[in-house]
Amino acid sequence: MTSPLAPGSTIGILGGGQLGRMLVSAAAELGLKTFVWSDAADSPACELASRSAIAPYDDAATRAEFVTAVDVITFEFENIPSDILATLAEERPIRPDPAVLEITQDRLREKNFLVDLGIPTAPFRGVATAADVAAALPEIGCPAVLKTRRLGYDGKGQAIVRTPDDAEAAFAAIGAHPAIVEAFVPFACEASVVLARDQGGAINTYDVSENAHGEHILRQAVVPAGLSPELQARARDKSMRIAAALGHVGVLAVEFFALDREGNEPIMVNEIAPRVHNSGHWTQDACAVSQFENHIRAVAGWPLGAPDRHADAQMDNLIGDDIDRWLALAAEPGVCLHFYGKAETRARRKMGHVTRLAPLGVPFSPQE
Amino acid sequence: MTSPLAPGSTIGILGGGQLGRMLVSAAAELGLKTFVWSDAADSPACELASRSAIAPYDDAATRAEFVTAVDVITFEFENIPSDILATLAEERPIRPDPAVLEITQDRLREKNFLVDLGIPTAPFRGVATAADVAAALPEIGCPAVLKTRRLGYDGKGQAIVRTPDDAEAAFAAIGAHPAIVEAFVPFACEASVVLARDQGGAINTYDVSENAHGEHILRQAVVPAGLSPELQARARDKSMRIAAALGHVGVLAVEFFALDREGNEPIMVNEIAPRVHNSGHWTQDACAVSQFENHIRAVAGWPLGAPDRHADAQMDNLIGDDIDRWLALAAEPGVCLHFYGKAETRARRKMGHVTRLAPLGVPFSPQE
Repeated sequence: MTSPLAPGSTIGILGGGQLGRMLVSAAAELGLKTFVWSDAADSPACELASRSAIAPYDDAATRAEFVTAVDVITFEFENIPSDILATLAEERPIRPDPAVLEITQDRLREKNFLVDLGIPTAPFRGVATAADVAAALPEIGCPAVLKTRRLGYDGKGQAIVRTPDDAEAAFAAIGAHPAIVEAFVPFACEASVVLARDQGGAINTYDVSENAHGEHILRQAVVPAGLSPELQARARDKSMRIAAALGHVGVLAVEFFALDREGNEPIMVNEIAPRVHNSGHWTQDACAVSQFENHIRAVAGWPLGAPDRHADAQMDNLIGDDIDRWLALAAEPGVCLHFYGKAETRARRKMGHVTRLAPLGVPFSPQE
Repeated sequence: MTSPLAPGSTIGILGGGQLGRMLVSAAAELGLKTFVWSDAADSPACELASRSAIAPYDDAATRAEFVTAVDVITFEFENIPSDILATLAEERPIRPDPAVLEITQDRLREKNFLVDLGIPTAPFRGVATAADVAAALPEIGCPAVLKTRRLGYDGKGQAIVRTPDDAEAAFAAIGAHPAIVEAFVPFACEASVVLARDQGGAINTYDVSENAHGEHILRQAVVPAGLSPELQARARDKSMRIAAALGHVGVLAVEFFALDREGNEPIMVNEIAPRVHNSGHWTQDACAVSQFENHIRAVAGWPLGAPDRHADAQMDNLIGDDIDRWLALAAEPGVCLHFYGKAETRARRKMGHVTRLAPLGVPFSPQE
């Protein structure tokens, strides 16, 4: 644990998407500067950052400039090659520690980590060949999902195995990469917990959100979740155990499958994201301190802000040409607008989100 | 009235201080780009703006670059020379209209405008010489305040006239500029109304704040104000009449002196600011849509956002080395931090502000 970084210090952020952009805004409110390093043009975080560079992550000149300018390094996405992180870590502290990414970048390691903690997940088997896939099916059952161990997100790197005959084609479809075969879980509800853990190990946990996906992309998050209080407490408790076991610093999101809403069945962890998360965007508008600010606070060694909620909230993503409805959304009283300023609208691209608030505890009917 | 500017359009902002910085952040959440033009180094708005220039406001090269890049122009401070605005207005729309500034830049014109509207102010007389000051005193009374007609803020350009013998020295102290002599008002409470008016004339008014000044600088704003509901309604009504009579577009702040808290005495207008205002900073944390967002919405031709409040609020400015308490403030649960990232701390310089929230209607004891 080191001294908190004073206002005027610089947070280095790897990744230039909307998560990075919202981290930049949050850092600015704390008087902290930012240096965003992105490998892609049309990176919305760069526009707001105090400083930015667009270059491959192995570019030596950019690395020298970046490590000279920043006091600490964090990231907005988890698929950063570990050799890149190792080189950066020689120069500046990286928070959370790259060891956390080593686990969460790899679905098999992540699942095994959860098993070791005694936290339920969907049944799974690691596979390296099409024959492995076929061999796993009797135990896992059909249909099953084949997922690459690395570099999957928003449904990329996944294939469904409906019958044992699909094994070979499915393995080819994911590029014949090392993978896991996972059982389909007949969940009643998808939910997530977003929390922040500081350098001293204190954890502030936001309320559980209930999430809806479409085409493998998060569409909506609603708080409070329609799960029994006892089940929500179990989800929060598991998430805190995960954060502590990882030695995580910053925001961590844990996605769950609830097999029922009352808690008669186990609640299973689907995925861990060691970063700010789309299912926590509602905290910008319903909490005094958002997930983005709490991530920056933790990374900078500041005390965490309170995660209390002053409203019920429904967050809807604007995906692809959903953003074309901007004027109608702006005309809706009390809607909180968050448009990402991306130059190009593409199908499946997250272009913004909106949050609708309702007084605490008043029954809230999800819209759209 | 013109079409709303689509996300991706650019708002030009004259002035690079903290108000500009918070306008930039608000514009970014709407997917709008910004170009900040400041005439001063250490301008905190430039750090966040999509684009910025630091140059005198009469610099022709910067003007050409600015008007080419922006779709509409607004400002964060009101002391912009009218010839500069006239030149810019030939190229791009300026919102609010420079005609509003013509009135509010000049204390005498502003006072006469209020008199014409039948809105009470402190008794005043326009003066151009020390002899005028002496001649005004029998009517205005002593002590009185001498204020330059132009370019005064935070107590600059003001002198107190305690006795008629002070007239000459006081006039010299304000630089012998054209001025007004104003009666001291024995107010019970300073208050302000912040509102937004859109291009179609619709007005959304935030709740009245009660303000405390020290050394002519705003120190604290508390909402709700300790004024009777009827008196608050009168303050809001007067503010809306002022905004409409000015044909204002954007946020407008009206500062009042309440002679009593019940409304047995008139409530007097002290000053009009045709821009976002320090006494409205609490709207960032206590409202779904802040004064900064509503200003950008109005300037961009968008519908206004709702001004409803979800919490009681107390905003305290951090002035000069108040900012040195940043870590203690960060450790206070639920406090909302807004540090401006200014490189140099100076006495009387606004370095940040904090907002404390309390549930609506729960008695709120102002702190500090």
